[in-house]
Amino acid sequence: MSLNPDRLFPADERTRAIARELHQRTADLPLVSPHGHVDPRLISENQPFPDPARLFVVPDHYLTRMLYSQGVTPAEMGVASVDGTPSEVDGRTIWRRFAEHYRLFRGTPSKMWLDHTFAEVFGIYKELGAGTADEFYDHLSARLTEPAYRPRALFDRFNIEVLATTESPVDSLEPHAALAATPASGGRQWGGKGGKVVTTFRPDNMVEPGWPGWSERVERLSEITGEDTSTFDGFLAALRSRRQDFIAAGATCSDHGNLTAATEDDPKAAAEIYAKALKGEADETEILRFPALMLTEFARMSVEDGLVMQLHPGSNRNHNQWLYDGWGRDVGGDIPNATEYTRALKPLLDAFGNHPRFRIVLYTLDETVFSRELAPLAGGYASVFLGAPWWFLDSPEGMRRFREAVHETAGFYNTAGFVDDTRAFCSIPARHDVARRIDAAYLARLVAEHRMTEHEAAEVAIDLAYNQPRKIYGLESQ
Amino acid sequence: MSLNPDRLFPADERTRAIARELHQRTADLPLVSPHGHVDPRLISENQPFPDPARLFVVPDHYLTRMLYSQGVTPAEMGVASVDGTPSEVDGRTIWRRFAEHYRLFRGTPSKMWLDHTFAEVFGIYKELGAGTADEFYDHLSARLTEPAYRPRALFDRFNIEVLATTESPVDSLEPHAALAATPASGGRQWGGKGGKVVTTFRPDNMVEPGWPGWSERVERLSEITGEDTSTFDGFLAALRSRRQDFIAAGATCSDHGNLTAATEDDPKAAAEIYAKALKGEADETEILRFPALMLTEFARMSVEDGLVMQLHPGSNRNHNQWLYDGWGRDVGGDIPNATEYTRALKPLLDAFGNHPRFRIVLYTLDETVFSRELAPLAGGYASVFLGAPWWFLDSPEGMRRFREAVHETAGFYNTAGFVDDTRAFCSIPARHDVARRIDAAYLARLVAEHRMTEHEAAEVAIDLAYNQPRKIYGLESQ
Amino acid sequence: MSLNPDRLFPADERTRAIARELHQRTADLPLVSPHGHVDPRLISENQPFPDPARLFVVPDHYLTRMLYSQGVTPAEMGVASVDGTPSEVDGRTIWRRFAEHYRLFRGTPSKMWLDHTFAEVFGIYKELGAGTADEFYDHLSARLTEPAYRPRALFDRFNIEVLATTESPVDSLEPHAALAATPASGGRQWGGKGGKVVTTFRPDNMVEPGWPGWSERVERLSEITGEDTSTFDGFLAALRSRRQDFIAAGATCSDHGNLTAATEDDPKAAAEIYAKALKGEADETEILRFPALMLTEFARMSVEDGLVMQLHPGSNRNHNQWLYDGWGRDVGGDIPNATEYTRALKPLLDAFGNHPRFRIVLYTLDETVFSRELAPLAGGYASVFLGAPWWFLDSPEGMRRFREAVHETAGFYNTAGFVDDTRAFCSIPARHDVARRIDAAYLARLVAEHRMTEHEAAEVAIDLAYNQPRKIYGLESQ
Repeated sequence: MSLNPDRLFPADERTRAIARELHQRTADLPLVSPHGHVDPRLISENQPFPDPARLFVVPDHYLTRMLYSQGVTPAEMGVASVDGTPSEVDGRTIWRRFAEHYRLFRGTPSKMWLDHTFAEVFGIYKELGAGTADEFYDHLSARLTEPAYRPRALFDRFNIEVLATTESPVDSLEPHAALAATPASGGRQWGGKGGKVVTTFRPDNMVEPGWPGWSERVERLSEITGEDTSTFDGFLAALRSRRQDFIAAGATCSDHGNLTAATEDDPKAAAEIYAKALKGEADETEILRFPALMLTEFARMSVEDGLVMQLHPGSNRNHNQWLYDGWGRDVGGDIPNATEYTRALKPLLDAFGNHPRFRIVLYTLDETVFSRELAPLAGGYASVFLGAPWWFLDSPEGMRRFREAVHETAGFYNTAGFVDDTRAFCSIPARHDVARRIDAAYLARLVAEHRMTEHEAAEVAIDLAYNQPRKIYGLESQ
Repeated sequence: MSLNPDRLFPADERTRAIARELHQRTADLPLVSPHGHVDPRLISENQPFPDPARLFVVPDHYLTRMLYSQGVTPAEMGVASVDGTPSEVDGRTIWRRFAEHYRLFRGTPSKMWLDHTFAEVFGIYKELGAGTADEFYDHLSARLTEPAYRPRALFDRFNIEVLATTESPVDSLEPHAALAATPASGGRQWGGKGGKVVTTFRPDNMVEPGWPGWSERVERLSEITGEDTSTFDGFLAALRSRRQDFIAAGATCSDHGNLTAATEDDPKAAAEIYAKALKGEADETEILRFPALMLTEFARMSVEDGLVMQLHPGSNRNHNQWLYDGWGRDVGGDIPNATEYTRALKPLLDAFGNHPRFRIVLYTLDETVFSRELAPLAGGYASVFLGAPWWFLDSPEGMRRFREAVHETAGFYNTAGFVDDTRAFCSIPARHDVARRIDAAYLARLVAEHRMTEHEAAEVAIDLAYNQPRKIYGLESQ
Repeated sequence: MSLNPDRLFPADERTRAIARELHQRTADLPLVSPHGHVDPRLISENQPFPDPARLFVVPDHYLTRMLYSQGVTPAEMGVASVDGTPSEVDGRTIWRRFAEHYRLFRGTPSKMWLDHTFAEVFGIYKELGAGTADEFYDHLSARLTEPAYRPRALFDRFNIEVLATTESPVDSLEPHAALAATPASGGRQWGGKGGKVVTTFRPDNMVEPGWPGWSERVERLSEITGEDTSTFDGFLAALRSRRQDFIAAGATCSDHGNLTAATEDDPKAAAEIYAKALKGEADETEILRFPALMLTEFARMSVEDGLVMQLHPGSNRNHNQWLYDGWGRDVGGDIPNATEYTRALKPLLDAFGNHPRFRIVLYTLDETVFSRELAPLAGGYASVFLGAPWWFLDSPEGMRRFREAVHETAGFYNTAGFVDDTRAFCSIPARHDVARRIDAAYLARLVAEHRMTEHEAAEVAIDLAYNQPRKIYGLESQ
């Protein structure tokens, strides 16, 4: 399937022509990816990708969840089970199953990203389906053996300027060290401060005492940092110390996937819960309260060390119990909850929201807060910026609704620019392409309706695609 | 008023042309109506309709509520009062009042449905108003005496393939038996399994102990089924037995109009509340909890007998106390509540959400859940499908927003297709016409923006209009 | 910057042509402004406006909040501090700062209003920016010294038919008395009943016992009215008496800015809380409950004296504590909360919602209630009407979404028409211009999609712009 050069632009000829013009200003700008889930070893080890099924289908829960929603089980799609029950292992079989069901994705972002990747990255201009499954599989498999399709080669071909991965405080930063030791390409070092691949400090598994293995991780943190994590002060010191390691590995941001946006500023209460949790005596209320208390502690650290906070609340993790029991986390069983921000964030914002060195980027899975809470907060606090539409909202319609609901109150310059948030490395160009096209389309409508000049719109388009993410996520000072 | 052939299509010429093409593929498909409120006696008795006022205005709370919102009382519109206070009885007077206020409906679905019905069903191509009220009344009255305007004649002329009515477990299925005994037309039987008119099992008045007459209905259920409903097990057995009667009368679905989407899986608690409720000792919390418990019991039955569940939560019934006191239920006094699904449905979905024989269709009056909860649930559970926009959302803009918010996450094939949900028999073609046009318009935009091919869109249009509702509501296996 | 005559109309040529036609029908209608915050002394004293910075920037929290969201403090923008800490006083310096940051407002309503005002009111057809700041400042300053730019001259030039200001029961109505004594112009008196400038009864600071100075205000109310406010009955009598003063000063409405839409009908409870509050013994729950109880008391008064109620709930006042501590109220630190109406309003509507002499206009900052709660309420109660999109929603996209979400259920005639709600006197024509254009654009789409005739749309456009606000806010009987 060939990609129409006008894809995602409005049908109206006048508006489409403007969108086309605007998009030409951003189409070739480098990709800035300040938030994502690519495994850093992919780049540091630079091994060939596995077969097409394992590259595109098996690890992508956008795809496996849609197939499951129509009765095709994760096992049939090759997802490894928790208890070792065999799943399909033959790549071609998985791929054929996927191709047979490709119609389920009609009109979805997943299909748009895949079709873009097949065409632009792999040079296949056909429509995937039962009849073409083998042809795709053979073509893709052949490409994947070539040096030009190794991760680092693709990274440079994709024109990625910087890619942030996400690690927990107890994760090894070895891959990032390896990247820092990798010979530079294109005049820029691969890892370390200011490198092409940087890390992000994501401490979720340290602040949820109910998450299996928490006390072991707390001990591990002590080993890594040499701090005594048996006290809350020691725990904080260990986190502070670990943040310095992350900063050395290029981190400019922390990221927080709390269940809600609740915050509290009460170090004493946090210390008490911590002590109880270590003894296994924290009750459910306390376990839920701890992340809210810790969010403010992390804000306190941000003011000290300059890491930009990102907050991704609202995901009811592992809602589908059967999926979780059978195939574990991150296989598509999460469902959003309604998420309140106005009251929830007040304690944190009271403490740091007007501090000149503090910055927080808010994301949501609940679009009802776009106009009601997020835009007013971003337009009312110097520290608050809005992240790109996330996950289920990372889509043409989601992005359009985001701009429509947010820009009139918060303007364009309180939004942080696009992040791809993906573990699907090969889809990165496709995702940025969609975002740039949708912003061009939206700005084109404002121009066509005489709400902005074309000159203003061009400047905004470039800022949103490139300057804003570099600035807001702290990448431009690197 | 003549109907423009391009009505509801986008103004943009390019998109409109595509919409026109797509709509031609679905315009003549049979109507599948798997959820509605037409009285089965209308078809079984096949008597002439009453006068135009009693056919179109008096029983349609969409119309009487709008008139009341501008001060015209239900009594003035001929709605029968609860206490026998006289209401207007003269059909022509009611009709004139309605016509004088027809401007209130400008741009609303009600007007669109009526104008379509006047033109396509009755051949009147004028605009209703004070000046034309009598002409309409006379014309309609004359038509209604003709054999071609009897219900069964219209049913066949409307090209309805199947129409589901809605009955309570204690309602008589006599009209359906009569339909089963009616000579077939067009090669298909009128009633019974696989018939043109089928029933739906709607047990709301059996699961709300606070609903006046509940214990009498429980006894009546015992009489009908021969089961001993003085125990909870007997109650469940009676419901199971009655479901078999409904299945024999063609039912493929049950329907549940709970106040919320809350569910609980706890048969013991249900049995306790049932026992207390029978003695009149259940408190308000228990009375509210019982339907949530019963929803899971009905899911359990569905897994056994195959009835597809439909859930219609979120209506705050009889909000307008004065209307309720004066004119009773279903006269337009209901107002939606915010409705949570993610947490609410988890107990039921934990129990049956991944069972291969379970299927549930979710509806909502709260469009904030479209992208936040419903699309992720439908895209994450094999058993979950999304019902058409309902009631206040059964409108061009409501349907458009539904597709925009849902399809990128859930695709098209996790939506169940259109249901007209109406008691206004003559408006059925108009309602399906609107839905098919809006889907054509939406798909046309995706094609015009190069997000789908025209070939894909045509297939989806046909599936949404015909194949999906047949499949999801269990009608195709009949 | 010149104003394009097609601004805000849809790009599609067919629809744009219809919008143009419709807009011509309303463009020159008088402005009806039944709810706003202009200081009545502005008109009664008719002094020249201050310098451009103090006229346009310093008092407009839409502007100062956006600048603050990017780190420019209120002090730098000349906002007076609470404790006397010096703020910038030089108008030209403030103006230059504003001009340098004008790009932040790209595509926002604020910029649209300002550009319109610069062009249409002051005859400047350039783009404001760092390079043109001084030119703007000099031009505007020169104009502001001319008699034609005095408030009353502009009032008549703006073609304002009536402008409602907002006063508290303990505010002086002196300016309104002065207006009543001002010689008429254009054949109509300036103040008093039926005058060009009228007041609105806004008792918020009398019903929030936690608001500093409450008991002093209660005493002041006693002094003004001669009623004994030491008892609840006396308090009510004083409010009743004061409403008569307001009615004499032209008021046709009351306005209520409660935190939520909660209502209760329980005069006894209200009396008890009142007594405790006077003694300083009301607890937080009681303090929050009192406004809910008083809302129903005011409804009771409305039925007696005919004032139309307006309800503006949902603003979490002074969310930004640092802004509030430093610069006080109304400087941009308010953030909306989610707001429930269906259950909240039931007690009030049970009591008066079907009373033929009662009328209430509902506003919201939470657009999720447009289709779910507000449209059904307005379409289900004769007394309920919907106010224009307010504050953060008073924008082209906000207005469009309002019509799209509301009109199919409530029609056009249960909406009350546009209110500008502004303290920025010079922006009044710009705001009405935006509203009329957006309604024209929306109606044009309905016409282009054959959902209304052009004749119907023209009538609706005129009704929304002129007849509805006059009728719903009780201005036409004056």
